[in-house]
Amino acid sequence: MESDVTVKISEEVLEKKLQIAGVGKKITAEFKNLVKEITPMLVNIPLELNPPTLEDSTSDHDRLNRGIDKTGIDITRMSIGMKVMRELADVMRDENWNVTATVVKKKCSNEVLRVVPGNSKIDSLGVAVDIGTTSIVVYLVDMEDGTILAATSGHNRQAACGDDVINRIVCAEKDGVKKLSDMVLSTINGLINEAIHSVKADRNQIDNVVMSGNTTMTHLMLGLEPRHIRCEPYIPSVSAFPIIKAKDIGLKVNPVAAVFVMPGPASYVGGDIVSGLLYTGLHREEPLTMFIDVGTNGEIVLENKDWLMTASCSAGLAFEGGGVRWEMPAEDGAIEKVSIDPETFDPSLTVIGNISPRGICGSGIIDLISEMLLKSIIQPNGKINIDSTHPRYAQNGDEKAYIVAFSNETSVERDIIFTETDIYNIIRSKGAIYAGFIVLLNQVGMDFSMVEQVIITGGFGQYLDIDKAVTIGLLPDIERNKFRYMGNSSIAGAYMALLSEEYRKEALEISNSMTYIDFSSNNKFMHELTSALFLPHTNLKEFPSVEEAIK
Amino acid sequence: MESDVTVKISEEVLEKKLQIAGVGKKITAEFKNLVKEITPMLVNIPLELNPPTLEDSTSDHDRLNRGIDKTGIDITRMSIGMKVMRELADVMRDENWNVTATVVKKKCSNEVLRVVPGNSKIDSLGVAVDIGTTSIVVYLVDMEDGTILAATSGHNRQAACGDDVINRIVCAEKDGVKKLSDMVLSTINGLINEAIHSVKADRNQIDNVVMSGNTTMTHLMLGLEPRHIRCEPYIPSVSAFPIIKAKDIGLKVNPVAAVFVMPGPASYVGGDIVSGLLYTGLHREEPLTMFIDVGTNGEIVLENKDWLMTASCSAGLAFEGGGVRWEMPAEDGAIEKVSIDPETFDPSLTVIGNISPRGICGSGIIDLISEMLLKSIIQPNGKINIDSTHPRYAQNGDEKAYIVAFSNETSVERDIIFTETDIYNIIRSKGAIYAGFIVLLNQVGMDFSMVEQVIITGGFGQYLDIDKAVTIGLLPDIERNKFRYMGNSSIAGAYMALLSEEYRKEALEISNSMTYIDFSSNNKFMHELTSALFLPHTNLKEFPSVEEAIK
Repeated sequence: MESDVTVKISEEVLEKKLQIAGVGKKITAEFKNLVKEITPMLVNIPLELNPPTLEDSTSDHDRLNRGIDKTGIDITRMSIGMKVMRELADVMRDENWNVTATVVKKKCSNEVLRVVPGNSKIDSLGVAVDIGTTSIVVYLVDMEDGTILAATSGHNRQAACGDDVINRIVCAEKDGVKKLSDMVLSTINGLINEAIHSVKADRNQIDNVVMSGNTTMTHLMLGLEPRHIRCEPYIPSVSAFPIIKAKDIGLKVNPVAAVFVMPGPASYVGGDIVSGLLYTGLHREEPLTMFIDVGTNGEIVLENKDWLMTASCSAGLAFEGGGVRWEMPAEDGAIEKVSIDPETFDPSLTVIGNISPRGICGSGIIDLISEMLLKSIIQPNGKINIDSTHPRYAQNGDEKAYIVAFSNETSVERDIIFTETDIYNIIRSKGAIYAGFIVLLNQVGMDFSMVEQVIITGGFGQYLDIDKAVTIGLLPDIERNKFRYMGNSSIAGAYMALLSEEYRKEALEISNSMTYIDFSSNNKFMHELTSALFLPHTNLKEFPSVEEAIK
Repeated sequence: MESDVTVKISEEVLEKKLQIAGVGKKITAEFKNLVKEITPMLVNIPLELNPPTLEDSTSDHDRLNRGIDKTGIDITRMSIGMKVMRELADVMRDENWNVTATVVKKKCSNEVLRVVPGNSKIDSLGVAVDIGTTSIVVYLVDMEDGTILAATSGHNRQAACGDDVINRIVCAEKDGVKKLSDMVLSTINGLINEAIHSVKADRNQIDNVVMSGNTTMTHLMLGLEPRHIRCEPYIPSVSAFPIIKAKDIGLKVNPVAAVFVMPGPASYVGGDIVSGLLYTGLHREEPLTMFIDVGTNGEIVLENKDWLMTASCSAGLAFEGGGVRWEMPAEDGAIEKVSIDPETFDPSLTVIGNISPRGICGSGIIDLISEMLLKSIIQPNGKINIDSTHPRYAQNGDEKAYIVAFSNETSVERDIIFTETDIYNIIRSKGAIYAGFIVLLNQVGMDFSMVEQVIITGGFGQYLDIDKAVTIGLLPDIERNKFRYMGNSSIAGAYMALLSEEYRKEALEISNSMTYIDFSSNNKFMHELTSALFLPHTNLKEFPSVEEAIK
């Protein structure tokens, strides 16, 4: 951004924002390496046209096209709307044949969306959005050089209608899709507004947008009917979306801004997973790879460069809000690391922002349950194992709980506790993911020993302790150097697609090449799930390093 | 049309309507020969889709596309609007996966415009429109087999703003383009309504429309700024139009109907001429050919299969309303043939519809002036030459006039007269056309003797006496078998383009290949025009057969 109205926010503030959004500055530098050439969907083309003469009396429209042609955009596939045609004669003469044309480049045609007098440079901004069921992340991007100018994140306002996608769909059936659509759009518009204000830019500068989300989220955001996602045979309305005009969906940016929505191959494996795969680049790599999004739906992918197999384990909410009473996103005040004293059972907590805790984020939960298991505060079946007289013991209705932080240590003035229900929810979620991978591997006659890399993404913030995730049986007990944690890969892929036409095409290719395996009526999956409802697993032989540790 | 709601009008009534519109039934049969395969812009595709299953859980949109793909339409270039996407889930399930998709096939992409439940056949209708400055002609066409079901014609309501295109533009500058746009659209909508009612059809059945008109007419119809057409260097806003949705221009047919507007290469050579050339097929033929539209603007074309040269002679109004006080279109009550008794100077008149006359149409005017010249009622300079005591003599203000029909012989109860001003206007018009051709021929080093055919079109109804047109110097004095009169070629070309994608492409090719020669500042043209302001010409040697006749 070279305009003097746009003031860059301090590097320090930005880095913090990016960390909150799950992506550090190091990764934004990495992105810039990945995206070699910026090729937006929508471009503003400043033109200095020759005035007409008796010898050169071509029409205004052809004169405009001639100018656009010289910039290398294919005018043989160009369309133009009535409004633009009607204004053309005046617009072209207002500033002596200097104009700026706004052109959207679609899959198979281009369209002149707008022509304005004058040809001063417009500082074009882009927005990448990750629409999570729980949290939404927005990057504001300089379309000139790909710099991330601001990153904002917040809770999806749809949460008022329930924590998981099923609740959201039920709510849409009851109150109408528009209500849910308005909720998520108001969240997105609010976050864009915040980003825009932080750099003192104008929302009309935003003319390229990429959105990534699971299938329910994209349907609700676009106002598409979601009800058939919920019922067998689980059919989405739309998998691959055309490029949409911002004003047609109520997005408060430039009204003609081009919006690309990440395609999603199935009702329970959506654009966020495609976006994540795009970012990781796994589909271009040879090794047998597992990809896990440890979010609300527990989507998993098993793939190499020849095929992509995917499924949803409906992990529930244990790793992303709702399934655990004190869970929260990886934001200031979230407990992100836990270790427990084997004698006193007192935890020592690392809290994001170094403030008093107000909840626990995903990585903190994995730490907590793993520490509790290793210190025998819980049994492998998830039951709490400490004496009712212990200071860390709490009774929560009918069930036992462990006090993670006493009320006076918190910023919420209540005990932060961890209940047997919380533990059961986590066991169910981690068990489903583990069982899912066994089924996918069996499908191709393979097992965990043949997996060459495991990519984990999800809203864990900066930090995920692989050892502890293995300890609870979420990840398989294989060589630790095969694991890579990649943060929020959905927003990362959206950012890449925002900057590059090649990546937008690649996203469509990824979505089209995915084979979706439905677990909803899969007996093998149910069997494996039952075996995995233990910490780390009913068959401890599958987790030799854990067997050794808890011996 | 196989629907029982559509009742065909009687053959006799239709033939009369077609004659009024300038095209007889014989020509409609010829059209059907020309158009081998009907390829509309917009098609309604009935589909019987397979219901989804767990094994076939593709999205509603992909399922629809799969169905469309089987009909041979390219779905890789297919787009879809938000409204259609939002309704898709319900629409597809309403009639158990039987739907009808409406698809528009554009130059470089296709779009699903609408999907409705059920797949019963829709009887699709088309409309071809010739938007003349004076008269508008509408054909209503069965898109299944190309039958012309009805033809209607009427005066362009814009006539209230002046007779020629210049007056219309001036009026648009004063009162706004919208006023003129509304006038022509209300005329067109009225004529479509009349056609629809005559066959008891529904306007929503009309989903394909082709419009042909001169550049000013198409600009005003579409609400495009026309003012630069009028002033040097005479620039139209748009030459080649995208396919437009009917609702975007206020055309009262199916709201999503596809509208193709004939492209026009220059401000004074428009889509009507392109349409005419398309109909004649001249651009595909070897011989050196002259093409004349003897209408308001006197457009001329000189061409062979390698090049097309065109110009406008701004013929004025003498052959199409306004320039001659008693002129009218070739409708019931128009004098279309005249012969004059050399002794009594009494005319014998042929009137369209065999009723009392109420005016004179173009062919009648040519007959009249030619007869008056041959019978020495006028001199070669256009002055009236009969005695003021003669019963056919009338004084009209300062000038002399000839009484064509006495008031008691007419249906208007006034003398129908022919004044020296009328004669001067005709001399100017015919002189401009003749001079124009000389300039075009000179441009390529040719003369009239090398011309192999002459095509004449314009609103003369069924009849044009070539000999008499030569007598007054409108047409060159060459072998009579080189002349062909083709009626309203603009509506004929529009009809062809309505039925065939090939012809729509060809129209664009014709328009692009035309070289426009501007006469507005051409000294050679002015010189030739001065020489031609005589009956038939100052140089009588150019008209040997006329010299012989008036000897």
